[in-house]
Amino acid sequence: MEPEIITDKTQMRNWSRAIRSQGKTIALVPTMGYLHHGHLSLVEEAKKLANVIVVSIYLNPGQFSPSEDLSTYPSDFNGDIMKLMSVPGGVNAVFHPQNLYDYEIDRKNENYNVNFRDSGDNCKGVVSCVEEKGLGHETWVRVQRLEKGLCGKSRPVFFRGVATVVTKLFNIVEPDFAVFGKKDYQQWRIIQRMVRDLDFCIKIIGSEVIRDSDGLAMSSRNVHLSAEEREKALSINRSLFKAKSHAENGIINCRELRDLVVQGINEAGGKIDYAEIVDQESLETVEEIKSPVVFCVAAWFGKVRLIDNIEINA
Amino acid sequence: MEPEIITDKTQMRNWSRAIRSQGKTIALVPTMGYLHHGHLSLVEEAKKLANVIVVSIYLNPGQFSPSEDLSTYPSDFNGDIMKLMSVPGGVNAVFHPQNLYDYEIDRKNENYNVNFRDSGDNCKGVVSCVEEKGLGHETWVRVQRLEKGLCGKSRPVFFRGVATVVTKLFNIVEPDFAVFGKKDYQQWRIIQRMVRDLDFCIKIIGSEVIRDSDGLAMSSRNVHLSAEEREKALSINRSLFKAKSHAENGIINCRELRDLVVQGINEAGGKIDYAEIVDQESLETVEEIKSPVVFCVAAWFGKVRLIDNIEINA
Repeated sequence: MEPEIITDKTQMRNWSRAIRSQGKTIALVPTMGYLHHGHLSLVEEAKKLANVIVVSIYLNPGQFSPSEDLSTYPSDFNGDIMKLMSVPGGVNAVFHPQNLYDYEIDRKNENYNVNFRDSGDNCKGVVSCVEEKGLGHETWVRVQRLEKGLCGKSRPVFFRGVATVVTKLFNIVEPDFAVFGKKDYQQWRIIQRMVRDLDFCIKIIGSEVIRDSDGLAMSSRNVHLSAEEREKALSINRSLFKAKSHAENGIINCRELRDLVVQGINEAGGKIDYAEIVDQESLETVEEIKSPVVFCVAAWFGKVRLIDNIEINA
Repeated sequence: MEPEIITDKTQMRNWSRAIRSQGKTIALVPTMGYLHHGHLSLVEEAKKLANVIVVSIYLNPGQFSPSEDLSTYPSDFNGDIMKLMSVPGGVNAVFHPQNLYDYEIDRKNENYNVNFRDSGDNCKGVVSCVEEKGLGHETWVRVQRLEKGLCGKSRPVFFRGVATVVTKLFNIVEPDFAVFGKKDYQQWRIIQRMVRDLDFCIKIIGSEVIRDSDGLAMSSRNVHLSAEEREKALSINRSLFKAKSHAENGIINCRELRDLVVQGINEAGGKIDYAEIVDQESLETVEEIKSPVVFCVAAWFGKVRLIDNIEINA
């Protein structure tokens, strides 16, 4: 089935409302495009839940800082549509907006006689690729504890950008369900918490990490790895699986397990951003595995930053 | 008409959805209770817009800092219901939740072996009366530029608390319209901006300031004024009206107009928190009135902090 391609916010909302008025349920799969089998597994998960599937394809500038890889993030819209059509039954709609932060401000009116405050003083160093001045976008959703650790440390604008764009997508698509990959574990937990705290009536589903046959977690960024880098990057998943196996054999000291993974990745030539064993819900670091944890890793191979994780249910 | 009184979130949402499935529109009037004629004027405004009116009565701890007047904020639920019934046609429902931040966390599970980060390090000094630790509430909506000036300076948690609770109410009630009083001018502009930036499909209406016959802007807090303080507090509205009249007679220098108001309030024994002439949309201070502005004042009389404002359309 060929999906309906919708680029306008209002048209998207009207489409969803028409569907829901027929008593059908909608599942949203938010993506930034350049789809791979991981994304398609989210679509398959969504199809188990709802009558109608909407995939959003939107490269969100709000979650990139100016120094990050927004400009080199891969895209292939026509290929994405073909891939979505390859899923049995396809998807019903693809929401592909041009710019979710353009509010058609009358720019002439911005030249009034006012002194703009520095927008940065409450969030020093937190600047995204969204224009934030004058009458432009200025509302951000912050999930204050969960956004701090792991990827939040090295990517300070990332999670406020994710939480904000997901809020926007929720308000535009008005889905009953939304499916997120557990490969972005912290993102999944942040969205769950946000939905609870802001009383969205949307059920959030976390879908398992999908790996290539060599074990590497699928990511749109993998395309930037050379063959050699890719081989080295396998140290991430291999060491994570080894740590899990050790934990299952009674090694519950987190420092020991962490050393194992850090060493594995370092020896392969990777540069660790973080390797942390954290509580599955609070994402706080633990010292010993006594309750369900997740081992989260981010590491650089060449110019590519990869993340992966594995749940360890004590 | 006696309103239906709903205390449960899910019941409220189901009620709204049943109404909307009949093709009717809903207007929400969010309040913190202890209603006065100002609130009732919002209800009347709402009745012009929508088929069905929901008034929320919820004293939101998220917008008070521990040092503010949450504990002495007046309340009279039965009186509020009577007042709402006095409006011709009444209102359809009153949403009166017990606690919008209680997520029924299994507190026993909070004793796991984790090291909680200090939730304050991104928002130093920003602490509200909502418990914010462990698995408790942690998501806040920030309207980063508009929340900074005017009341935001002396009340640093106020507007994030307002924006967050209004987001929650919007997600629970799912209204088509929401009516706010322009007496809380900055709040009204913040909600408008938030709705635009987060793509809520809700039309925000600003309703004019309602004054007692002596000109004092109506406020639930006026009840705390002694007769003498109340007489002195009239200096706020009197000086604001005088400033507007001066401006209309060609005095466009804001320092001159501001001095007039500061002097009027000071002479009456009030303590100015702020007195600023700002652009009506950006809320940035202006030096000369060349475009539509609003003159906003906050001042203390005894232990009562009052706010008022007047629009001046150049």
